[in-house]
Amino acid sequence: MSIIVAKFGGTSLATAERIKRVAQRLVDYHQQGNKVVAVVSAMGKSTDDLLRLAKSVNAQPPARELDMLLATGEQVSMSIVAMAVEALGVSAVSMTGGQVGIVTSAKHNRATISEIRADRLFDILDQDKIAIVAGFQGVTVEGDITTLGRGGSDTTAVALAAAIQADICEIYTDVDGVYTADPRVVPRARKIDEISYEEMLEMAASGAGVLQMRSMEFARNYGVIVHCRSAFTNNPGTLVKEATMESAIISGIVHDSSEAKITIRSVPDQVGIAAKVFGAIAQANINIDMIVQNISEHGTTDISFTSPINDLVRLRPVLDKAIEGLGARGYLIDESIAKVSLIGAGMKSNPGVAAKMFSVLADNGVNISMISTSAIRVSVVIDGDQTELATRSLHTAFGLDSDDVFEETQLSSEELQAKMAKGR
Amino acid sequence: MSIIVAKFGGTSLATAERIKRVAQRLVDYHQQGNKVVAVVSAMGKSTDDLLRLAKSVNAQPPARELDMLLATGEQVSMSIVAMAVEALGVSAVSMTGGQVGIVTSAKHNRATISEIRADRLFDILDQDKIAIVAGFQGVTVEGDITTLGRGGSDTTAVALAAAIQADICEIYTDVDGVYTADPRVVPRARKIDEISYEEMLEMAASGAGVLQMRSMEFARNYGVIVHCRSAFTNNPGTLVKEATMESAIISGIVHDSSEAKITIRSVPDQVGIAAKVFGAIAQANINIDMIVQNISEHGTTDISFTSPINDLVRLRPVLDKAIEGLGARGYLIDESIAKVSLIGAGMKSNPGVAAKMFSVLADNGVNISMISTSAIRVSVVIDGDQTELATRSLHTAFGLDSDDVFEETQLSSEELQAKMAKGR
Repeated sequence: MSIIVAKFGGTSLATAERIKRVAQRLVDYHQQGNKVVAVVSAMGKSTDDLLRLAKSVNAQPPARELDMLLATGEQVSMSIVAMAVEALGVSAVSMTGGQVGIVTSAKHNRATISEIRADRLFDILDQDKIAIVAGFQGVTVEGDITTLGRGGSDTTAVALAAAIQADICEIYTDVDGVYTADPRVVPRARKIDEISYEEMLEMAASGAGVLQMRSMEFARNYGVIVHCRSAFTNNPGTLVKEATMESAIISGIVHDSSEAKITIRSVPDQVGIAAKVFGAIAQANINIDMIVQNISEHGTTDISFTSPINDLVRLRPVLDKAIEGLGARGYLIDESIAKVSLIGAGMKSNPGVAAKMFSVLADNGVNISMISTSAIRVSVVIDGDQTELATRSLHTAFGLDSDDVFEETQLSSEELQAKMAKGR
Repeated sequence: MSIIVAKFGGTSLATAERIKRVAQRLVDYHQQGNKVVAVVSAMGKSTDDLLRLAKSVNAQPPARELDMLLATGEQVSMSIVAMAVEALGVSAVSMTGGQVGIVTSAKHNRATISEIRADRLFDILDQDKIAIVAGFQGVTVEGDITTLGRGGSDTTAVALAAAIQADICEIYTDVDGVYTADPRVVPRARKIDEISYEEMLEMAASGAGVLQMRSMEFARNYGVIVHCRSAFTNNPGTLVKEATMESAIISGIVHDSSEAKITIRSVPDQVGIAAKVFGAIAQANINIDMIVQNISEHGTTDISFTSPINDLVRLRPVLDKAIEGLGARGYLIDESIAKVSLIGAGMKSNPGVAAKMFSVLADNGVNISMISTSAIRVSVVIDGDQTELATRSLHTAFGLDSDDVFEETQLSSEELQAKMAKGR
């Protein structure tokens, strides 16, 4: 007998048929003698619909009321999944974030979990019932409904798994697991069977979308074993857990085309200039990633960094103001870049990785414009048009290529799911 | 300064435009110096959508989970209305039934209010904020979400008004108020300015759909003054309150075509037969209304009663079983009947009302097949085809006709609202 927490994303719950399939999976687990907790996201695109509704009456909806509204999406899912489980003859009890005892800070729209009072959840499991919990939400000590922000349902699942010492936290999604590279770009990408928390965190930070960084931090801190897998097959996915003794040198390659490169030109090479510029950007709550300062020439220097393209609208006025009076020659923004990252825990004891990466890229005519490294990651910024070439050639050079070619590359998400639903 | 509770039905909240109009009304009340509590139903037909979703995964959704699901409808409304109020620059706080302190029995889908803990509501009003409360829902002492069943939002509004000793409970709907008869049938129907709780209760029991019986019982028991009015105009509607000294003999005429007449033929005229039949029907939780037992002939009798047409599917097997072994000659069901009721508190001291009613109907060639009376009501069952003739002739004979002819008779509800929205 195990305690299983299983989280299902919106795509896995988008239709009545899919919900019934989720219910069947929970009932199967239950009949195998396990204690089962499901954590559910809002159905399909319903959160987007609610957001649109809010904007139709208030362009800037107050944070508290937005949480009240968005929390209904998961409440619908959880009650419908509970009904579907009951239709299969097994007792189920749905619970909101508040009812399951997830106490959070009062930071609406991006609350953090401060405590989980899981007494009622334990009672329900002891009564041999399946618990269905609304992801993404909690409640303040005053009883106000909060939401956890982006990736919140994953965080709910991992936090609950930690609180009830679950044997495993399954994250069901619309992909098979974590891959050595994006299969849409690298057809020979392999599914990774097992990966360490550290590597998964670096992959998430480098732009891999499968698992959210925040939930992975939670998993690492509490030692929760996470199984990322497809809701549309019974195939095993990727296990995220403590690193084993022998780690692969390179676990995966992640590319990210969502950032732009900003270069501030001819800044006087004086103490405190960087602090001034990046302090202003941080104050505006804009994320920046790689920062490179070129060697000084004639007493001036260029400072380059990357930032999400989505944040450029907010970044521009901040930059305009920050460089005023600095004597800089203005700034350039290049949106056509890509970041390619090699990630692997084995890198620590294999110092040649970065050098090999640069030489592979050079051999393929890929120019590197920025470099940044951590203990288990090397990232480079290149021309966006060369993303595919760079990722594929690195994938091959570091021995990651699968013998199978990923055929679904050309299928849409819907076609892929239909195919998988047919028992593949 | 007054304390105002204002309840808005689904039609008044069906679109962003209408929600903004509701918000403006609340803000106007607030700016006039009143303390304002709004109670809201689910938007438009969203409750029906949720029910359909539930049925798509479970033909008989468990009651607890259905409440979890349906409660989201009002939660969406309340947060959207709060956002719309905030957009007008006034602070608003939305609250679920549980948050506003409505404690109910654990009878899911038709819970009854056992207590209202209004401390938080008082706090919010003292902070000069508008409170927006989800109608139709509450919470058990264990923290489970419940719903109050049909007409539940009206009940929430009246109960809250009682709990905070509001000066008035306004029920905004898509009609102008309570009429002396249904204006679609009687074009000379008049809007009633004021009516007693007792009369309103009899009207609701006789089939008038404007105000729910349950909320009116609550209003009478706690002396809550109710103002039933249109959400689409600023015209005064109908006040429901304690009877004044001088009551009109007849306040209104209500017709109801939603019932069928059932006649059990040639039942042996023995003690306990009626108890047996109606006991079985009551056990099946089927409503019955008028009961008439004809004079016994040759030791057998006919028993007739009325019951909602919607309940016939459930009634038939119960009747089949109940009359087994009674020696009855079977039963007849007539769905083409109508019930017409005269209601008026002044009737008590005017004994000739029933006689005049029967003679007016006779003069117009309307045959009466059943009669039932209370202290302030006379109801007759007639042929459904004669509903209009009967209602109009009684309306005229009892001096209820307005000088104005209700012109909107031919307009659809949408056209009517559009016309009213234009400032009529």
